[in-house]
Amino acid sequence: MKQEKTSPKVPRADLDSLFRVFTVPENENTTLGKIDQQISQNLMGFLKSHIVAEDRAASDLEKDFLDTTIPDDPIFVTEQAEFLIKKVVAQSVHTSSPNFVGHMTSSLPYFMLPLAKIMIALNQNLVKIETSKAFTPLERQVLGMLHRLLFNRDEAFYMTKTQSPNCALGAFCSDGTIANLTAMWVAINRTLAPTETFDGVNQEGLYAGLKDYRFEGIAILVSERGHYSLNKAAKILGIGERNLISIETDYNNRINLKALKAKVVELQKRNIAIASIVGIAGTTETGHIDPLEELGNFCKQNNIHYHVDAAWGGPTLLSSKYRYLMKGIELADSVTIDAHKQLYVPIGAGMVIFRDETHLNLIEHSAEYVIRSGSRDLGRRTLEGSRPGMAMLVHSGLRIIGRKGYELLIDMGIEKAKEFASIVQNDPDFELITEPELNLFTYRYVPEKLRQAISKATGTDEIEWINHKINKITIGIQKTQRESGKSFASRTALLRPDHPRQKINVFRVVLANPLTTIEILQEMLEEQRSIGSKIVVTD
Amino acid sequence: MKQEKTSPKVPRADLDSLFRVFTVPENENTTLGKIDQQISQNLMGFLKSHIVAEDRAASDLEKDFLDTTIPDDPIFVTEQAEFLIKKVVAQSVHTSSPNFVGHMTSSLPYFMLPLAKIMIALNQNLVKIETSKAFTPLERQVLGMLHRLLFNRDEAFYMTKTQSPNCALGAFCSDGTIANLTAMWVAINRTLAPTETFDGVNQEGLYAGLKDYRFEGIAILVSERGHYSLNKAAKILGIGERNLISIETDYNNRINLKALKAKVVELQKRNIAIASIVGIAGTTETGHIDPLEELGNFCKQNNIHYHVDAAWGGPTLLSSKYRYLMKGIELADSVTIDAHKQLYVPIGAGMVIFRDETHLNLIEHSAEYVIRSGSRDLGRRTLEGSRPGMAMLVHSGLRIIGRKGYELLIDMGIEKAKEFASIVQNDPDFELITEPELNLFTYRYVPEKLRQAISKATGTDEIEWINHKINKITIGIQKTQRESGKSFASRTALLRPDHPRQKINVFRVVLANPLTTIEILQEMLEEQRSIGSKIVVTD
Repeated sequence: MKQEKTSPKVPRADLDSLFRVFTVPENENTTLGKIDQQISQNLMGFLKSHIVAEDRAASDLEKDFLDTTIPDDPIFVTEQAEFLIKKVVAQSVHTSSPNFVGHMTSSLPYFMLPLAKIMIALNQNLVKIETSKAFTPLERQVLGMLHRLLFNRDEAFYMTKTQSPNCALGAFCSDGTIANLTAMWVAINRTLAPTETFDGVNQEGLYAGLKDYRFEGIAILVSERGHYSLNKAAKILGIGERNLISIETDYNNRINLKALKAKVVELQKRNIAIASIVGIAGTTETGHIDPLEELGNFCKQNNIHYHVDAAWGGPTLLSSKYRYLMKGIELADSVTIDAHKQLYVPIGAGMVIFRDETHLNLIEHSAEYVIRSGSRDLGRRTLEGSRPGMAMLVHSGLRIIGRKGYELLIDMGIEKAKEFASIVQNDPDFELITEPELNLFTYRYVPEKLRQAISKATGTDEIEWINHKINKITIGIQKTQRESGKSFASRTALLRPDHPRQKINVFRVVLANPLTTIEILQEMLEEQRSIGSKIVVTD
Repeated sequence: MKQEKTSPKVPRADLDSLFRVFTVPENENTTLGKIDQQISQNLMGFLKSHIVAEDRAASDLEKDFLDTTIPDDPIFVTEQAEFLIKKVVAQSVHTSSPNFVGHMTSSLPYFMLPLAKIMIALNQNLVKIETSKAFTPLERQVLGMLHRLLFNRDEAFYMTKTQSPNCALGAFCSDGTIANLTAMWVAINRTLAPTETFDGVNQEGLYAGLKDYRFEGIAILVSERGHYSLNKAAKILGIGERNLISIETDYNNRINLKALKAKVVELQKRNIAIASIVGIAGTTETGHIDPLEELGNFCKQNNIHYHVDAAWGGPTLLSSKYRYLMKGIELADSVTIDAHKQLYVPIGAGMVIFRDETHLNLIEHSAEYVIRSGSRDLGRRTLEGSRPGMAMLVHSGLRIIGRKGYELLIDMGIEKAKEFASIVQNDPDFELITEPELNLFTYRYVPEKLRQAISKATGTDEIEWINHKINKITIGIQKTQRESGKSFASRTALLRPDHPRQKINVFRVVLANPLTTIEILQEMLEEQRSIGSKIVVTD
């Protein structure tokens, strides 16, 4: 083989600047240091303003992002930084504004910013210990902390299992969707376990498994308030969305146990395997909690994998006052918790915790070049491959905020929701639709005139016609408020036991930002009233 | 409902400090500003040293991460920062060291650090436009850039499709595993599409689908060098790992087309559906590229979804000199590219690009509270839910490094690999096992004595016994070198056509860091020789 030297072929200047971008900057007075400072100042300026978003339509924004040519020649970092500041930062949604109460994307404690720099700069890949080292036991420790919070096994359990390469107390992942998917994947493997004539569903697949077990199909059961990630899981796992069976809820948005039990009997009669029953600890739409203990006991009696989707509500366990709401979660086989929700870390930190430390072994995999069998590599038992060291930020939150700090956040959120719900309820122009159990609830704008119309209505058709009008007003208010940019409440559409045929559009407020005050919420309400009063529904 | 005020119940001091951590810091002279500087200095110090990792055993490290109690009381940010610096940063793997040539976790250009701060601080959630705004068209633009690089459709296509809410040119995700999984998910939906008697596999599931189509099973085909994420995909999707069919490779680690075609005929005879044939553009172990054009034509003739896993090799398209290696990739239905590999962005940036802009519509989903049908929400067509704004960093890399900069990186890597492979080949103590096609290759240490023993060996048994010895030496060298911390090469085990019964352990070098010099590689080789010469194999 002829030896080739690269150097003479490329102009020296280009190579030099390339080396420079990969070389550790000498000190803060470099261009990069100055850009860093400029970005910081600009970010702080942006974050200090309380405006949720600039009033610019998405279709208009897109004009800045139309060019799909990869530029041949490099541009200066300063040029790109300026572009990002003007076109991206300025046109972002201020998710940490106290006026942003519409979604579960939380505000961040500011210490996360300098600490996140450690994660980015070290660029560890948690899939294997060879590219992560200390981050590996750190992630196991965090999973142990969450396991203990949920299941509270004895000290000996945690001393022997947390760091053991032979098992896993849970898996980190990018979000609750992957967490739920991982749990359902394990559940299917428990349901269609190897037999004398079948090597297990991971090996042989769903078709062979159902045939071997002589089942006619396989299903997952969850209330109609289940997160859409479970629909995705049913599709991806080959179960089929049709077999994600939606159980009706009661007036408080909790699963109707009688309906659930009847459905289980029906499925068993039809010879359909039940891979899992999923309880919800904080529904995305209304924040309600299923009867976790009854669900747990029922699953145990029927030998069904019991998963709890506590992506939102899980951290309620950190509050001495409200942890009773989670009673029964300790009966779960697996639990989803999103750290980027109520543990206040940046986006990208989902977790699924398994009570039994051996259950994740059911989906264990290995390869010759990484995650070798018997190794400490975390990638042996995660659905994802390459993963960043987000666990470090969860670890930091748990220590710097502490259990008591999280307790304060949880308690404040729930109590603020109750206080604001009471204000809404006592306002003649608004109707409280769902009461808060955690820190979120739903309501709508129903001015005096329409309220009277409903009370005078003589039949279902007339009520539905009025509700149709109110739905239009609700959607109109939410859109205008979102686009005007002063405050942001989200909206959803709910089927209610008293309106079983018609979805009701509602505002949804999520009160997770400690800086959101009752005054801010009252102003938001006034803005909604003012926008609503100007909306004319024609049909 | 009784109105509750939270304020009187909690000691004011605690609330104050809680508000403080969520409030924008006033200026750089705060404690947080100082911590930020301290972390930066420490990180730069760590990154300047060329040591790959401290010599401390993983079992010893774990002692610092045993406590699974969530502390009741908060600690100061300074205390946690110090803990992270001492126990985590100092015990991390220096993945961006020029001496770290073992894995595909790349070094980062330093401008990524200040720019990543924008992503962390804004904490946008790309699942929906209500929590991302400008980041949404930005991500679509980046997907458009990659689509154009791969498929080069005309300008009208990109002007109408890139930002259209009715389709998607691809999906961002956390890594190549999710990218491959997404592609296989779409492929199954294309294979078991709705019929008159069947609503499609997403709706009805795999069991009903195979029954409706009267198939006996469903399979995915890839060469034996396929990434283990495809095994995971086969398990998760309910296909079964057994039905991920491994096709033998030739001496250059490329799929044996004859064997592939024979297998397709056999499967068709057995009435097994073929969901996809996967070509590899840069195998993880050896960096070789399958005959992409032949594979593409074969798939087209047989109406099979053609996926190319270009997680590693994709960016080779940016090099005018070497893009010919990717010839035929434009025939793919879907392509995986990891931006956190050869596009040099931090971990957490996978992408799957679809040639047909409507194919991701096959897995479209919606919910009432987010990703409403018809909306601009990216979450309508991603496997994951909540996702951070990593696209911003890919965008920045493509503009700041530019096509020519990436070309330089690609060309240097490939040519450095050729040069180092030639050094290895000319060294009497080493054996080149696989030649570099991209910037990686494998080799092993075979000192004179063992080399002679092999040449004199009289039968397969004797050769295998000697190889067994060499394997032990290879593993020993790699472990010692990894733990001593001066350099890092990874290892894998390959079945070779000339050793069809016995896996050969090899060193694997990945030359993606532009700061890695031939001198560094020569030193690594000397270190391997020196360690190897001291290893005594007893059995």
